Amino acid sequence: MNKVLIVSRQQATYRQLIKQAQLPSLEITDDPKQASIILADPPKIARQLDDYPALRWLQSTFAGIDALIKPELRQDYQLTNIRGHFGQLIAEYVIGLTLNHTRHFSLYHTQQHAGVWQPQPYCSLTSQTMVILGTGSIGSHLAQVASTLGIKVIGVNRSGISDTTAFDQVYSLSNLTDALAMATIVVSTLPATLNTDQLLNAGTLTHCNNVLLFNVGRGNAVCEHGLLDAIDKSSVQHAFLDVFNQEPLAQNHPFWRHEKITVTPHIAAESFPEQVFDIFQDNYLRFIANQPLHCKVDFDKGY
Amino acid sequence: MNKVLIVSRQQATYRQLIKQAQLPSLEITDDPKQASIILADPPKIARQLDDYPALRWLQSTFAGIDALIKPELRQDYQLTNIRGHFGQLIAEYVIGLTLNHTRHFSLYHTQQHAGVWQPQPYCSLTSQTMVILGTGSIGSHLAQVASTLGIKVIGVNRSGISDTTAFDQVYSLSNLTDALAMATIVVSTLPATLNTDQLLNAGTLTHCNNVLLFNVGRGNAVCEHGLLDAIDKSSVQHAFLDVFNQEPLAQNHPFWRHEKITVTPHIAAESFPEQVFDIFQDNYLRFIANQPLHCKVDFDKGY
Repeated sequence: MNKVLIVSRQQATYRQLIKQAQLPSLEITDDPKQASIILADPPKIARQLDDYPALRWLQSTFAGIDALIKPELRQDYQLTNIRGHFGQLIAEYVIGLTLNHTRHFSLYHTQQHAGVWQPQPYCSLTSQTMVILGTGSIGSHLAQVASTLGIKVIGVNRSGISDTTAFDQVYSLSNLTDALAMATIVVSTLPATLNTDQLLNAGTLTHCNNVLLFNVGRGNAVCEHGLLDAIDKSSVQHAFLDVFNQEPLAQNHPFWRHEKITVTPHIAAESFPEQVFDIFQDNYLRFIANQPLHCKVDFDKGY
Repeated sequence: MNKVLIVSRQQATYRQLIKQAQLPSLEITDDPKQASIILADPPKIARQLDDYPALRWLQSTFAGIDALIKPELRQDYQLTNIRGHFGQLIAEYVIGLTLNHTRHFSLYHTQQHAGVWQPQPYCSLTSQTMVILGTGSIGSHLAQVASTLGIKVIGVNRSGISDTTAFDQVYSLSNLTDALAMATIVVSTLPATLNTDQLLNAGTLTHCNNVLLFNVGRGNAVCEHGLLDAIDKSSVQHAFLDVFNQEPLAQNHPFWRHEKITVTPHIAAESFPEQVFDIFQDNYLRFIANQPLHCKVDFDKGY
């Protein structure tokens, strides 16, 4: 009999989903000593990892598992995360807010309140070039949607090579500033690793020219002071930030009241429990059959 | 020598584009008696049509040519309009405002002003079914973009048959209410003809259930009283209207201050002069070579 322990904001929902599914040889436990499997939100479990002596596999309910790959934490278990379905939600967020900006929807809302009929000049998305940092499942899905909408799409990753055809071009991280110089929209979908830390800073952002900047990956990729500087210098026209170094964003943080920064409370892509459970279920059947797990994290790479 | 006369809000721009292009055997005239070709905004030329005895071809600068197909007006000339590139702009408008609504961007804007970090529940576009009235170039392009974003797409047209694969299903206008019953989003891209007049009225809208309703075609397709009624009964959750029976919308019109109606000043798809001119130029070369013109309007069908 395998025993799974759940540590999540959505505790009750996951408990019900697991009970309903009646997976073979699996029962839910609340005893840390007995749990060989954990289904958990990474920030909630990170500090208690040593309390689980029987742990063999941890299924993260988030895509972001950086809380679990710190060097001081154990790595003697299989860690899997959530991938695949976030691309849809991230694409909705980026395309929706881009159109909100380019097509002046907020301005028309204000005009309507004032009873004003006044068309505003605008450009089509076909005049945009989107540089996407990260060419994994999220970046690739966004690239595909953006292409269908007529946007030119450039990917940036470690190797400068991508195995999808979703990108018009792919640059390596070492040529990041060349890519940024071509952008009208920049989107970071990067995970939090040492390589991505403060990648978009006062120096690199200087190469941008009046771009829309999105961070839908992890807060650490954007240097906050560097961003404020880049907005002052018009390298960045407007920033749309869904992730931050500290969440929730501190009450006195200058981003809240900056008119060229849109703050959203980490909602670009949500882990819907049903979708997380589908991945857990599939992986559980692989686990008991000694098959390789899907969405397995490489502790060395950090993703 | 052929003589073209220009009647447009963008008079100066078109004059310059035509001069620059140096088209063979073409000169610009301001004398109505001499003009065999007219490049015009339909509402500006409709009442003066009889002043042009030499008229053989009129290139509309708009997609909407209903001002020129009234029964009392002459039809002894070739009328061509603008098609093709509007699909992109209409898709941007519909997808952008849909995401603005489903992903709560206005609410997050308000929350940001108040310093509030509060995620809101939402559904992905993959849970939506869009019913598009009109399966021409605009409706088909919108269908293709919506499909890429995971939306199920149903088309409605006169025949119930479409030669594109952009739609998951196509219904005929006689089965309109069956299609409406399946919708979460309804988009009218219909031209103004006798068949489309007041098509979305209190009766047909009863078959909708809490839909988002877009009118990006012509104002006559939506019965204004019927719409207000349908909103009261929650058949329509929110209406996004870009076209109206009278434009600009009258100052005292109830739509301005209705919180479930978004009014935009006919900006969903603009005729950019450069794109209009490309079509005019191509058609002019066909005109002097006695070839069939592109985008020719059938006066009987009205489109």
